[in-house]
Amino acid sequence: MERLRAGDARALARAVSMVENREPGSSGLLKALFRHSGRARILGLTGAPGAGKSTLVDHLARHYRAENRTLAIIAVDPTSPYTGGAILGDRIRMQHHFSDAGIYIRSMATRGSLGGLAGTTADVAMVLDASGRDLIMIETVGVGQDEVDIVRLADITIVILVPGMGDDVQSIKAGIMEIADIFVINKSDREGAERVEREIRALQSLATRSDNWTPPIVKTVASEGTGVAELAGAIAAYESFLSTRNLALGRRLQNWRDRLLEMLRAAMLDRARAQMGDGEVERLALEITEHRRDPYSVIEEILNRLQPQSRANSDVPH
Amino acid sequence: MERLRAGDARALARAVSMVENREPGSSGLLKALFRHSGRARILGLTGAPGAGKSTLVDHLARHYRAENRTLAIIAVDPTSPYTGGAILGDRIRMQHHFSDAGIYIRSMATRGSLGGLAGTTADVAMVLDASGRDLIMIETVGVGQDEVDIVRLADITIVILVPGMGDDVQSIKAGIMEIADIFVINKSDREGAERVEREIRALQSLATRSDNWTPPIVKTVASEGTGVAELAGAIAAYESFLSTRNLALGRRLQNWRDRLLEMLRAAMLDRARAQMGDGEVERLALEITEHRRDPYSVIEEILNRLQPQSRANSDVPH
Repeated sequence: MERLRAGDARALARAVSMVENREPGSSGLLKALFRHSGRARILGLTGAPGAGKSTLVDHLARHYRAENRTLAIIAVDPTSPYTGGAILGDRIRMQHHFSDAGIYIRSMATRGSLGGLAGTTADVAMVLDASGRDLIMIETVGVGQDEVDIVRLADITIVILVPGMGDDVQSIKAGIMEIADIFVINKSDREGAERVEREIRALQSLATRSDNWTPPIVKTVASEGTGVAELAGAIAAYESFLSTRNLALGRRLQNWRDRLLEMLRAAMLDRARAQMGDGEVERLALEITEHRRDPYSVIEEILNRLQPQSRANSDVPH
Repeated sequence: MERLRAGDARALARAVSMVENREPGSSGLLKALFRHSGRARILGLTGAPGAGKSTLVDHLARHYRAENRTLAIIAVDPTSPYTGGAILGDRIRMQHHFSDAGIYIRSMATRGSLGGLAGTTADVAMVLDASGRDLIMIETVGVGQDEVDIVRLADITIVILVPGMGDDVQSIKAGIMEIADIFVINKSDREGAERVEREIRALQSLATRSDNWTPPIVKTVASEGTGVAELAGAIAAYESFLSTRNLALGRRLQNWRDRLLEMLRAAMLDRARAQMGDGEVERLALEITEHRRDPYSVIEEILNRLQPQSRANSDVPH
């Protein structure tokens, strides 16, 4: 704890691994660190594979390091057991920033656990926050509900699109467009950048946000560093919008409402699974597969057994 | 129930709506129908937006109707509240099959509920199965965990790729490639079809399936109907493989293992939410946002209150 809070990189790496793997003691660590968190600004960056997220994040990192802010980057990586490994490699990216203790980079794989990735990412971000980093950038491939849940953690959400990747705007997960605070059109020297911009504008014209912020569209060519300063400017403008209107707290409150229920659901499933045991799951699954029982009654029975003091089911056959 | 089982289309539509919207009585309906289900063959078809899924499904539907098999098509549709409506339209598609009572088509939107889409789709498929349809085709955009969960419902999973849509194989959600029983390269008259085929073969060379089935690759041009008969042939070959090796039951058993836990999780969250009430969630979220309490201790307390008879937490601070 002390070494972590003093900025010790090895203690940080150890704590992050503990939390990521849910090792014994990680719960106590999280409880103890929580009160030191809440100071870091969290940026979420999301976009389809090949949109240039990593390059853009690297340029932003250099920009912020030049301002002497300390950083952590969490790259959430949709690893597949089939392809057998991370697509991104910290190793390659670490080489750039190797000698700079002000940047901490961590790749996270999608664990096998159902829906657990967003929760783990949130916990890791909290540890990094508590360790005193000024800025945490979470980058993720914007294609699934996991990704939507992850970018919801962020104070500021940046959606990265590129021209010429099919139906650009439509190919990104529905739900992500809505939560963008800033749009980036990367590789904007390519043909079709104007069309992407028109598509974003068309979407924006269909709905207004409750906070009346109109997400700006920033054009970049990340490979050449073009537009990175403008992006940093757009981020600063939104930060200032958040603070003058005192909206950051409201947004975090909304996140905690959602996350509390998500945490509760995950914890209850863990407990139920522990109490049932694999043998009972197996036996019930077999009975259902063979149509000897129906799954809806089975679930009701399990719930009633786990919580005998709770109310009876309100939804009865009629 | 009786009208539904007799094939009455209006009773079927009413039952599907009840289940989709979780109306009162839907639980009783599901319980009663379950024992009549398990007879239909379920095909899952998935691919990126623009891959030509609907056209291919329509051609397959005609093929099977010519064999006098009754069909249902469930089009799972990533609707966004932002874009304000279904991208697919049953209405347009219904026109083709308007006069044919042997085809039932239903579009399903992604409801706001966290992770509930796969469960609802499974329930709707079960109703269609119990109503006596021979074949149920579920088509979905293969980009998220929801989609992976949905195609897991199927007896046979077909992944549709097209040439020239960027990194074709990489752009599809990791996790979907692994569960393909048959690959389709649609729009295969386009340049790049051979490259897509090579990429699939390269992926296949990295891992073998536990059942030793090598998913065939079928080339189609759905807009012209080319390759549809070959695809139907590949489906029949896999069906025959499943039945001679008696693998279908094992696959359904695996699905039920996963689904039971998912149903339990959803049901427990419902119950927890009902017991806590919005007021308490709000109050706790505020205390956490203001860092007066940590979320990890809050969750433990709620769990202990809900289940006072259960064991104490094994993960204590140290």
